[in-house]
Amino acid sequence: MLNQSPSLDRLFHALADPARRAMVERLTLGPAPVSELARPLPMSLPSAMQHLGVLEAAGLVRSKKTGRVRTCSIDTQVLGLVEQWLSARRIEWEKRLDLLDDYMQTLESKGENHGTSE
Amino acid sequence: MLNQSPSLDRLFHALADPARRAMVERLTLGPAPVSELARPLPMSLPSAMQHLGVLEAAGLVRSKKTGRVRTCSIDTQVLGLVEQWLSARRIEWEKRLDLLDDYMQTLESKGENHGTSE
Repeated sequence: MLNQSPSLDRLFHALADPARRAMVERLTLGPAPVSELARPLPMSLPSAMQHLGVLEAAGLVRSKKTGRVRTCSIDTQVLGLVEQWLSARRIEWEKRLDLLDDYMQTLESKGENHGTSE
Repeated sequence: MLNQSPSLDRLFHALADPARRAMVERLTLGPAPVSELARPLPMSLPSAMQHLGVLEAAGLVRSKKTGRVRTCSIDTQVLGLVEQWLSARRIEWEKRLDLLDDYMQTLESKGENHGTSE
C-alpha cells in the first residue's frame, strides 16, 4: 500500500537542511570546489563535508578529485525527481479544482434553466 | 550568509517519509478523515496521527473536527513553496546551460569566420 521510495526519502531529507540547500543553490550555478561550497557556511570544513556526504548519498551531488582539489557538481536529473513528485501532486489538485468548477457550472446552468422556464 | 528558512526545513523534512507522502498524495485528491488517511498505512492509528502532526506542524495539512470526525485537508499554497524553491533552481540551471550554449555558438561562428576568410 505504501509507496516505498527510498530515493525520495533521501532526497527530501537531503534538502531539509539550510546548509545543504545553500550548497545545492550554489551548484545549480555551476560546479564548485568543496572549499568554495564550505566558505559561506557558518561551520567547520569537516561539518560542511558531512553535509556534502548527505547530498552525495542522495545522489544529488557528485564530486571528482583532480590533484588536491575536489570539485562538486549537481545532478539536475535527480533534483528533477523531487520536482516531478511535487508537480504530480499539483496536477491532481488542479484536476480536482477543474471537476469542482465543472460541477458548479452545471449547477448554475441548471438553476438558470429553471429560472427561465415558463 | 546562510538562507535560514525554517519553514522550508520543516516542509522538506515532512515530505521525507513515505507515510507522510502517502497522506499528501491522498489529500491532493480532496479532504479526508484521519481514519481514511491512516487505513492504508502499515502502522497503528497513533503512529499515523504522529505523522499527521508533522504535516500539520509544517503547515502542509489542516484538520477540523466535526462531531467525532476529524477531517484533514491540504494547503496547496504551502506545498507550492517547495515547488517554487525547486523550480528556481531549475531556472538557474537552465540559464547556465543557455549561456554555455551561446558561448559554444560564438566559438563555432568564430571558427567558421576564420575558415572562410581569405
